[in-house]
Amino acid sequence: MNMPIVIPSRSTVIRQSVRVQFDYAVHFTEGLFDLSNPLFAEVLTPDRPSHQPAKPSDLIVVIDGGLNQHQPQLVNQIVAYCDRYQLCLKSEPLILSGGEAMKNDATLVTEIQQLISDRGLCRHSYVVAIGGGALLDLVGYAAATAHRGVRLVRVPTTVLAQDDSGVGVKNSVNAFGKKNFLGTFTPPYAVINDSDFLRALGDRDWIAGLAEAVKVALIKDATLFEWIESSVKALVDRDMGVMRSVIEQSCRHHLNHIGTYGDPFEMGSSRPLDFGHWSAHRLEYLTDYRLRHGEAVAIGIALDSTYGYFSGMLPQADWVRILNVLAGLGFALWVPELSDYAHQPEHSRSVFQGLNEFREHLGGEFTIMLLEGIGVGVEVHQVKVQTYQRAIDYLKAISALEGL
Amino acid sequence: MNMPIVIPSRSTVIRQSVRVQFDYAVHFTEGLFDLSNPLFAEVLTPDRPSHQPAKPSDLIVVIDGGLNQHQPQLVNQIVAYCDRYQLCLKSEPLILSGGEAMKNDATLVTEIQQLISDRGLCRHSYVVAIGGGALLDLVGYAAATAHRGVRLVRVPTTVLAQDDSGVGVKNSVNAFGKKNFLGTFTPPYAVINDSDFLRALGDRDWIAGLAEAVKVALIKDATLFEWIESSVKALVDRDMGVMRSVIEQSCRHHLNHIGTYGDPFEMGSSRPLDFGHWSAHRLEYLTDYRLRHGEAVAIGIALDSTYGYFSGMLPQADWVRILNVLAGLGFALWVPELSDYAHQPEHSRSVFQGLNEFREHLGGEFTIMLLEGIGVGVEVHQVKVQTYQRAIDYLKAISALEGL
Repeated sequence: MNMPIVIPSRSTVIRQSVRVQFDYAVHFTEGLFDLSNPLFAEVLTPDRPSHQPAKPSDLIVVIDGGLNQHQPQLVNQIVAYCDRYQLCLKSEPLILSGGEAMKNDATLVTEIQQLISDRGLCRHSYVVAIGGGALLDLVGYAAATAHRGVRLVRVPTTVLAQDDSGVGVKNSVNAFGKKNFLGTFTPPYAVINDSDFLRALGDRDWIAGLAEAVKVALIKDATLFEWIESSVKALVDRDMGVMRSVIEQSCRHHLNHIGTYGDPFEMGSSRPLDFGHWSAHRLEYLTDYRLRHGEAVAIGIALDSTYGYFSGMLPQADWVRILNVLAGLGFALWVPELSDYAHQPEHSRSVFQGLNEFREHLGGEFTIMLLEGIGVGVEVHQVKVQTYQRAIDYLKAISALEGL
Repeated sequence: MNMPIVIPSRSTVIRQSVRVQFDYAVHFTEGLFDLSNPLFAEVLTPDRPSHQPAKPSDLIVVIDGGLNQHQPQLVNQIVAYCDRYQLCLKSEPLILSGGEAMKNDATLVTEIQQLISDRGLCRHSYVVAIGGGALLDLVGYAAATAHRGVRLVRVPTTVLAQDDSGVGVKNSVNAFGKKNFLGTFTPPYAVINDSDFLRALGDRDWIAGLAEAVKVALIKDATLFEWIESSVKALVDRDMGVMRSVIEQSCRHHLNHIGTYGDPFEMGSSRPLDFGHWSAHRLEYLTDYRLRHGEAVAIGIALDSTYGYFSGMLPQADWVRILNVLAGLGFALWVPELSDYAHQPEHSRSVFQGLNEFREHLGGEFTIMLLEGIGVGVEVHQVKVQTYQRAIDYLKAISALEGL
């Protein structure tokens, strides 16, 4: 490193290589703020320089408004917990209304950054975000940019955030009409999945988050898919033990992928975990977020699997199993917005604009993940719009049948 | 990795480790946009997937207003260069008035992010920032957060930016009255130091940037310090060959430090390259940025060196040589704002508030770098305000003498 190398004529160059390692733990627990559960306090252990006594850890807490409505006692519980374990809560917990719409509001990012500034938090202080994926994304972005990064502890409270986005290395807000246009790659300091939070979820959110578990199973792990397939009824019946197991397995795949695939900050052109996502992001926008992210992903999986079968890549038997699992969990496999401008791909409200956005956001060579079989993802660099149009027409047709 | 480990009672944990490597080159050249110089086009080489023809690289360019005033032909030169080398300039170069004040204007960050969005740049496109350190910081922040990171090519045009900040891994803007409060750690895609840009600098900026070279010599390299010491006259007389050499050596030290010290994203409590900076940042603010950053750093070095001598850490002979080099280069070693509230350390306009800000921004254990000798930095975790007050009084006294 740093050897001078002469390149053309009048120029010289120094080559620099910077290696950074981020370590974080993903915890699974229940009763996170029960006074008898020491986990949260242990995660926020203060730095302890050898020659100085440890001072209490400083933290602020941001809570999802939806969660706060279901669990109004949570704020007091957190205050009591911090008191009991000598954690220095620098302000009353901040309640922000959660949901994807919050990510369109840039003033919320500023509000959190301002709180970090006003309360004198430093890089070794903690910002604790408790809520769904949208709240974790937004709070994460504020924490990542204040002081160039304050420690973020994510406490995901939905299935979707627990089994997918909450354990990853991204944060974001929407801007200029584009989902996740602003953000950073910043690993969290820690993630804590408390299954008790899932009890507060409505059935729709309980199911929606499973789409990401189905997705990771389809591209990485046929055994996990089979297990979900055999557990459809238990999951629909809200069996917490089965749900915890699905979440933990899904987390493990996501973490393994991020840790070992070699491009955690997506500097290349590949994003294999985004199977089913090019249309999903687009459908969220086209439905004005009437669709939950997981619900949009379920449609995206159905679409890309049907495309795969019609293209001759995916065996028919696998394709049928995929659609059956999704339908069995209760997912719709089609919405009108998918078809509205499907036959006018250049129309500004066509689902196919999602292919362009996907290309632009990720950059470089166009790459999407498709399936060659259950558990076997494969990257492709071009697709046929006509075949996708056939797949959309098919999904519309079977949806009409099921609706009878 | 990813082995389940049972911790207290009802909790389980997955440990995640994410390793990221960033490679970038720092080029030294002249006549960067001469049509005969292929370097810029080579740096912006497009990605070339094996099975597709390369398409031209997309870029936008942001230019420092001060530079544009001195070199009004630069914009046309860049346009002609991009035309000649088939680089796809996605908009007219954007001119922004440079200088530290721009970093207080959050709308400029949004303006650049909006341009990136409007022109359809992707993560593999280039944002080229040409200017002083403030412009590079601000443009870098916008580029790092749009799409979670578009490729940033820095073209530093001041001594300070070429020998110090331009080669590092940080970006920032000011917020909530705090310098660099918002930002990220994001290595550039490439840095290009063109010495021709330095000819446009006024004498004050030519000299100011040398403070960071003196700083890095003092903490790392006695030989470089001796070389600067013996070159004071040549540097004051604007010898470009000597300046290029000082800049390249300073770059090399900064890059080596970032690449090998083990904490490029400053997750620990140490920031050894910030010798002389706790008071420098503060003096910039207290003088309302009348002081250039380098000028403030020169005073900071004088102050911390004098403190070191008064504390018995730094030999007298070394201390005298340091002050002589700084004075010989033409730096003032004192400003009234240093003394104004030095004897009321708790006063909101006291220089000593800079110690608190330094602690808060970096976080964790209080740590500053001081000297045990020329080329020998040492970290300390506590300082005596009284000794600092004596050092300030001394610098005031000798400044009055030199003013006679």
